[in-house]
Amino acid sequence: MKKLFTTFVAAAALSAAAQAATAFTDAKDAVDYRQSAFTMIRHNTGDIGEMLQGKVPFDAKRVQQRADALVALAPLPWPAFSTAGTETGGGDAKAEIWADFKDFTAKADKFQLDAKALQTAAQSGDQAKIKAAFATFRGNCKACHDKYKAD
Amino acid sequence: MKKLFTTFVAAAALSAAAQAATAFTDAKDAVDYRQSAFTMIRHNTGDIGEMLQGKVPFDAKRVQQRADALVALAPLPWPAFSTAGTETGGGDAKAEIWADFKDFTAKADKFQLDAKALQTAAQSGDQAKIKAAFATFRGNCKACHDKYKAD
Repeated sequence: MKKLFTTFVAAAALSAAAQAATAFTDAKDAVDYRQSAFTMIRHNTGDIGEMLQGKVPFDAKRVQQRADALVALAPLPWPAFSTAGTETGGGDAKAEIWADFKDFTAKADKFQLDAKALQTAAQSGDQAKIKAAFATFRGNCKACHDKYKAD
Repeated sequence: MKKLFTTFVAAAALSAAAQAATAFTDAKDAVDYRQSAFTMIRHNTGDIGEMLQGKVPFDAKRVQQRADALVALAPLPWPAFSTAGTETGGGDAKAEIWADFKDFTAKADKFQLDAKALQTAAQSGDQAKIKAAFATFRGNCKACHDKYKAD
């Protein structure tokens, strides 16, 4: 078992050397990390949106799965905005984020609450409730993007 | 309120049109989605690894945060291997995945259980327990990559 463990730690060390650092210690990796988080959030949001618009058939269970994923993802991007060296931006992040980090954090916190409200609505299976919760959720996304995202 | 809602739905429709589809309906987006998931998993795993190796100071609370993120992320990549059109591969995914999807799914399930065991170890704050759980976690990652990942 000890030998097995040593092998894995050696593999981990090699892997770490190849990467040099992680999103939590390296500014460039932090941008990569938060962009990955937003990519996943966008796809889950998009799938719910397409179901509500009738572009793909509405499936209550699938809405629940997407909302569950959004709740899981919602806390993840934010630590990667505090990695040393990221204060100047990176990706589409505007410098305004760090100029008013308190407001940015408030929007990030609301995002997590909105995702939970969407999850609760999704569990009800009631399309009217899901639409209302989704509109609130999207509204906060948009408010944050308008102020803090470059494109 | 109704007007506000209509505005958000219109914005969602525009956004959806720009993307054309999501990871759950489009094979190319599915690759993007699962690669994003693995990027996030890699950074959280790497940070724990660097702490265990002493490259960055060991911080029990930080290990917990990374393990929590791994538990949140662990169920997410897999639906993007079942999107229609992905059966031929894409990214670094080898065709062997779809040739033995049952084994692939078993490894994906083990990954989720290993992440939970790592989370439990992280909550104990005991480095020996964390190292053991991390070795098991990494071992399954490696077994899956050796068989199903091209590089």
